[in-house]
Amino acid sequence: MRFQQLLHVRRLASAGATTLMRRPITTTTITTTSRTALAATYPAFATTVRTMAGSGAPIPELTEITDNVQRGNYATLTDKDVAHFEQLLGKNFVLTEDLEGYNICFLKRIRGNSKLVLKPGSTAEVAAIMKYCNERRLAVVPQGGNTGLVGGSVPICDEIVLSLARLNKVLSVDEVTGIAVVEAGCILENFDQRAREVGLTVPLDLGAKASCHIGGNVSTNAGGVRVVRYGNLHGSVLGVEAVLATGQVLDLMSNFKKDNTGYHMKHLFIGSEGTLGVVTKLSMLCPHSSRAVNVAFIGLNSFDDVLKTFVSAKRNLGEILSSCELIDERALNTALEQFKFLNSPISGFPFYMLIETSGSNGDHDEEKINQFIGDGMERGEIQDGTVTGDPGKVQEIWKIREMVPLGLIEKSFCFKYDISLPLRDFYNIVDVMRERCGPLATVVCGYGHLGDSNLHLNVSCEQFNDEIYKRVEPFVYEYTSKLKGSISAEHGIGFLKKDYLHYSKDPVAIGYMREMKKLLDPNSILNPYKVLN
Amino acid sequence: MRFQQLLHVRRLASAGATTLMRRPITTTTITTTSRTALAATYPAFATTVRTMAGSGAPIPELTEITDNVQRGNYATLTDKDVAHFEQLLGKNFVLTEDLEGYNICFLKRIRGNSKLVLKPGSTAEVAAIMKYCNERRLAVVPQGGNTGLVGGSVPICDEIVLSLARLNKVLSVDEVTGIAVVEAGCILENFDQRAREVGLTVPLDLGAKASCHIGGNVSTNAGGVRVVRYGNLHGSVLGVEAVLATGQVLDLMSNFKKDNTGYHMKHLFIGSEGTLGVVTKLSMLCPHSSRAVNVAFIGLNSFDDVLKTFVSAKRNLGEILSSCELIDERALNTALEQFKFLNSPISGFPFYMLIETSGSNGDHDEEKINQFIGDGMERGEIQDGTVTGDPGKVQEIWKIREMVPLGLIEKSFCFKYDISLPLRDFYNIVDVMRERCGPLATVVCGYGHLGDSNLHLNVSCEQFNDEIYKRVEPFVYEYTSKLKGSISAEHGIGFLKKDYLHYSKDPVAIGYMREMKKLLDPNSILNPYKVLN
Repeated sequence: MRFQQLLHVRRLASAGATTLMRRPITTTTITTTSRTALAATYPAFATTVRTMAGSGAPIPELTEITDNVQRGNYATLTDKDVAHFEQLLGKNFVLTEDLEGYNICFLKRIRGNSKLVLKPGSTAEVAAIMKYCNERRLAVVPQGGNTGLVGGSVPICDEIVLSLARLNKVLSVDEVTGIAVVEAGCILENFDQRAREVGLTVPLDLGAKASCHIGGNVSTNAGGVRVVRYGNLHGSVLGVEAVLATGQVLDLMSNFKKDNTGYHMKHLFIGSEGTLGVVTKLSMLCPHSSRAVNVAFIGLNSFDDVLKTFVSAKRNLGEILSSCELIDERALNTALEQFKFLNSPISGFPFYMLIETSGSNGDHDEEKINQFIGDGMERGEIQDGTVTGDPGKVQEIWKIREMVPLGLIEKSFCFKYDISLPLRDFYNIVDVMRERCGPLATVVCGYGHLGDSNLHLNVSCEQFNDEIYKRVEPFVYEYTSKLKGSISAEHGIGFLKKDYLHYSKDPVAIGYMREMKKLLDPNSILNPYKVLN
Repeated sequence: MRFQQLLHVRRLASAGATTLMRRPITTTTITTTSRTALAATYPAFATTVRTMAGSGAPIPELTEITDNVQRGNYATLTDKDVAHFEQLLGKNFVLTEDLEGYNICFLKRIRGNSKLVLKPGSTAEVAAIMKYCNERRLAVVPQGGNTGLVGGSVPICDEIVLSLARLNKVLSVDEVTGIAVVEAGCILENFDQRAREVGLTVPLDLGAKASCHIGGNVSTNAGGVRVVRYGNLHGSVLGVEAVLATGQVLDLMSNFKKDNTGYHMKHLFIGSEGTLGVVTKLSMLCPHSSRAVNVAFIGLNSFDDVLKTFVSAKRNLGEILSSCELIDERALNTALEQFKFLNSPISGFPFYMLIETSGSNGDHDEEKINQFIGDGMERGEIQDGTVTGDPGKVQEIWKIREMVPLGLIEKSFCFKYDISLPLRDFYNIVDVMRERCGPLATVVCGYGHLGDSNLHLNVSCEQFNDEIYKRVEPFVYEYTSKLKGSISAEHGIGFLKKDYLHYSKDPVAIGYMREMKKLLDPNSILNPYKVLN
């Protein structure tokens, strides 16, 4: 089914001529943010993104048992500890019952056995908690929105869960400099909405926006769909406040784009997955929100055409290119089967690309897009597609991309890999894996952030299956390592990949990571069993 | 004198009407890079930028004496050491004579007393040097193009100078992904030229481009004139190879935009000024070079109008804004007096702004600029100015901006400060300082990267003068600290500012910086007397 009232481009067989219908591009600011307000509209999205509590997947066995985890040499929680925390935080913010949502990961793969969730309301309270836990040798796992995909934000054994949910304020947004200061527990979408009130936008956007916390995003160096335009968080995060395992508050905040005063230690807390400190506050550079946002959804016949189209997008769209996503046929079809409310404007191609532009002048952007689409069709690279600048339609197309990962886990178990690969080899692994898994897998597919060389390889099966697991791992890591790729482009290492870190990092580097950990968390109480094995 | 054949905008007294002459904007790719080829054209520029060897400033006394430096407890170089290095590197790459250029800093403020310069040709040789020096307890200062402004790249006592000049190759440039791999000793301009051969550009640009090394840029987290568009090096540098003080090679290279495998330790080497390791290689994300580059040089009556014009530039120019520089009247006039070859298209205003746009479509960019200029004139914020897209003229306007810092040191001693300040208070300090210094100073002026809140405050006097020094320092740091600014926006801490670090970083942070130093350089042989006091 195709959208009506959209510019629908179609390749003409004759002489490469192209008809492009002109359409009025609205110059309204489009809240692409609101696409994650989908949760309100589509219950399936809401349940999966927020807690998975409503999904049919069974509650997993304790990870300590399934993965034969040797509990670290930590103290065991006592009633006296609980009483101490109740005095510190107030009884309302010390939870000892109904902790399932805090113990189980988003993918329902990891289940910890924590008996205590703490909800501090200030940096000082976080510091007091850490100081006490360090002295008592109680292990702690910091938790944001718990949307991670590698088991980094849930306890593995009985670690205390330190929820940042109450530290949820946007403290300031400077319209002129674009610099915002925000507490770690602020939900990404709320932060973005506040930024948009003064004409800015948060440079980070990802599917879990409605529930993930900005502090968790920073702690995992989250990537998402806008890295191609705004770069990564190491560039955007200007300052960090982190509470160390000892309870010391490390103030590395800065309200400036440029600050060359000493070692740039804040980066140790960006992407270390809560193992070096608890991020409690941060400042971020927010670009102006764009007056015009357009999305093209196009079909292509081969991965070679995908690559050519990517190069053409970089050339022709230049500074307005804000997303360049790939979805293969199987990934798209699985989503369409699972979520009947989705409408794909085109069908029947082995590859699809979602290309977004964001610019300050709608007419200019339209001209650039038309040139890009026209060139691609003339060269026979783009087969068919849709372009729209209508906010509602933009949202509908993004919805397709965002439901793709959820389609794969809706009724199946899914082995998910998140790898960076050289573009020339970007898609081969999907075919290779499909052959390795054969009929054991129900779907083997690939999608992801082509503009960042970041592939999400997915292998779905009816339920977790040891035979298929052995066919997939460690093969996928070995394959990636041979191509000098990254075994985790954006999801991180967490619990699930800690034994595979050596495929992407050499022993000297891993050795110094251990030294950093010792330096900042001498008793190793902070998020144990994660990142380093 | 005004450029002919340029679009010359003039405010019309009546009713805010504006006449904008349309001009053909060339779509040739403009090598703004070539503006630093100025050195070839203007000998004054060449001597000052490259070595200052030809400048009239006297050779300073040894810093060990002037600054009463207590030499660290290091071994003293012996003939046996020299013989060892000659065997390791070959005699041609072990220098023991004519070392003045390596011992004296760019500003002729710092003079070390090194007796040995080593020029390794590979990472392995750098590693072998460091291992030997660590075992022998010989202190070492890594040196790139020696263009730093805080004495970070010269010896303070008798440290061995480790020059990276021979590690000067661009190893690869990927046209599709934009990722380049380059050795640390490659001159920034050469790197940029190589990137431009395949339609890319290095995201970093600064006045010293013709002589600074990319490894030095990374080690000092250099900023420059394009941060407003491409962000800082923490975002652009994707991987680093660093040799530690122990001689271990820390391979943190990555050829991908996304790599979340373990702690992001590479950032410890970005901006630590060679005190934690010697950067030998790096990978960098290079954006596409723009088809059209335009520059506006405009005059304004007040700093309030400057701020309004900056906000308007961000709004109207959006994604094509690539530089937003401020020059005050005194800074401009000093440069014009010193360098008669400069032509300013306008004169008589207290403030000037240089605004550059870079985009993929010249016509679109021209329209955006005309709108921006027209709006600014209509509102009475922009008084007069010039806009050009002609490559030669673009270069001439940039030349004015680039000669400003050199004008201030051409025949004077200059106290240079490089601070980040809130925009509302950005320029006040120039007036405050002018009043404090009175007739003791010949020029007190401000210029810099307004788009990044980064002010270069300069106080010129005939020669170094203790009375004026006391009026300026530590006042400037106290003032900056009160406004929670950064006492070093981009130049770094080096030797000159190490006693002032506490004005921008708290004791806990400085304490952990010391721990990082101990961890990575246990004998403290790497670039001693710098960053931490």
